[in-house]
Amino acid sequence: MADSLYDVVGIGNAIVDVLAHADDAFIARHNLNKGTMTLIDAERADALYAAMGPAIEVSGGSAANTIASIASLGGRGAFIGKVRDDQLGTIFRHDIVSLGIAFGGRPATDGLSTARCLILVTPDAQRTMNTYLGVASELSVEDVDPALIANAKTTYLEGYLWDRPAAKEAFIAAAEIAHEAGRSVSLSLSDPFCVDRHRDDFLTLVDRHVDILFANEDEIVSLYREHSFDAALQRVRHHCPIAVLTRSEKGAVVVAGDEVHVVDAESVEQVVDTTGAGDSYAAGFLWGLARDLRLEICARIAAICAAEVISHVGARPETPLVDLVRQKLG
Amino acid sequence: MADSLYDVVGIGNAIVDVLAHADDAFIARHNLNKGTMTLIDAERADALYAAMGPAIEVSGGSAANTIASIASLGGRGAFIGKVRDDQLGTIFRHDIVSLGIAFGGRPATDGLSTARCLILVTPDAQRTMNTYLGVASELSVEDVDPALIANAKTTYLEGYLWDRPAAKEAFIAAAEIAHEAGRSVSLSLSDPFCVDRHRDDFLTLVDRHVDILFANEDEIVSLYREHSFDAALQRVRHHCPIAVLTRSEKGAVVVAGDEVHVVDAESVEQVVDTTGAGDSYAAGFLWGLARDLRLEICARIAAICAAEVISHVGARPETPLVDLVRQKLG
Repeated sequence: MADSLYDVVGIGNAIVDVLAHADDAFIARHNLNKGTMTLIDAERADALYAAMGPAIEVSGGSAANTIASIASLGGRGAFIGKVRDDQLGTIFRHDIVSLGIAFGGRPATDGLSTARCLILVTPDAQRTMNTYLGVASELSVEDVDPALIANAKTTYLEGYLWDRPAAKEAFIAAAEIAHEAGRSVSLSLSDPFCVDRHRDDFLTLVDRHVDILFANEDEIVSLYREHSFDAALQRVRHHCPIAVLTRSEKGAVVVAGDEVHVVDAESVEQVVDTTGAGDSYAAGFLWGLARDLRLEICARIAAICAAEVISHVGARPETPLVDLVRQKLG
Repeated sequence: MADSLYDVVGIGNAIVDVLAHADDAFIARHNLNKGTMTLIDAERADALYAAMGPAIEVSGGSAANTIASIASLGGRGAFIGKVRDDQLGTIFRHDIVSLGIAFGGRPATDGLSTARCLILVTPDAQRTMNTYLGVASELSVEDVDPALIANAKTTYLEGYLWDRPAAKEAFIAAAEIAHEAGRSVSLSLSDPFCVDRHRDDFLTLVDRHVDILFANEDEIVSLYREHSFDAALQRVRHHCPIAVLTRSEKGAVVVAGDEVHVVDAESVEQVVDTTGAGDSYAAGFLWGLARDLRLEICARIAAICAAEVISHVGARPETPLVDLVRQKLG
């Protein structure tokens, strides 16, 4: 196996977040699903945007956030996602490339616009996300650059991609290229509603293609339709080479066959905004894995990364993660 | 004179701010003028953007910020500025309209793109602004909706507009419409470099068209090429019906013929970011004036508005100004 150029290549929805404050009455009036991510169409996106207050725009997307954390760790990252050649697409691409991340996939020159996620932040600091996927939903096999995949130690896929048919194919094609090159494939289940939408597909995917699975408690319980975290843990143990199961402040459990590690969460002074916690956690873990660190050390690094992201508003790290990891692990 | 529908209509550059952190080495390497606003062309904007780190996007523009403060005061505001029918134009328009502000001027359907200001924030909290005016520079007489102007108690013009020939004409046309309708015209000098660029024009403008002039110490000293604040004050006293001269933490002096008021600045716990201080100050003053309050009360309200905006990052108010004014003035 040749030396790999990238630690991780992420494949995911290329999304610009549009954040505004809103009160609970707004959430109720517009029938929004508080605290979760809902897919919306263009018409609904326009109507909701028209009703929202003044907003700020910032690059987002689950796997893209993960790769931003890889860059913050001093790692070598690449990202594949679909944008249009419009202003939001330019913003998304700039924010990725300016972090030293390789951007794969050519921008579309016509058709749907770049994806955006209308996020309402309520006074209780919860985020209600409404995603218009636009051109991101057209990510297809042609966008998967085989050279990027073959040259990355791990190909990391966000479960949200599964919401669109063309992306599924791209997903599986990428996994096959990675394995042919002797690389690893990792999947994040994204959110419990996403698991509900695609349970059978995800089970097959884990069965056939996934080496490293990231899931939180709700997601893993939902995936196996079990009634307890421990029951789901026993199921995944015989299903996937490495499963990383996160439980917020209760820490995480890493399961790899007979090897099981229970690793505490990193303490934080104040949890300000949990968005992006899982994305950054996955980055820390995969960064450690790319350096052949022991699984329990990878989980420690992951916890440090997640702790940074939940200490401030916004889903991407603000303090260089490489400094925090050095400081805490020596 | 008919009852006016709007307290203030602002005319200015419709700009989306693009904010990124940078260190002093970056400012030096790219020959930027630290702490000031520089006009740049499209090529320079692209090169600078490519060199900048990840950014956030938020609506800006001096007069637009003023009208956002008018809305926050519970006042009735309107704004005239030129955008393209592109995504940044949609963002700018949304952020204005969602505040209940009337937006005048149709978006251009071809040609230059919506204006953006690339802002580098250094660790000392200073902002270095680099503005690509794009389509904003094409604001012309046709964009000045006579009904909006005639129905606003004050037409407020930002000096920055003077940087482009077509906008000058629009500027003067608006002033003439306002005066024919028995309304007031107000001008902000924007910044000392802007005064340097257009000193003779501004002097003529104040002479012929301006009823209420806003300037800070540097700007008024530069306008009259005087050596002291007091000397400039004596000059403007016989030149403009109302001059509002701001001096940051030293407070402000309001001069209206024989009437002179020296009003303290509002104390703030911590000055976080002074961008938008003058914009919000002008809003408070004009809002008071529209309610026929005494000049010294207008200046108190103005100081309360400026204090809010400098207490946080960002040029538009975050706490409803109407609440702060009620609380502090009873």
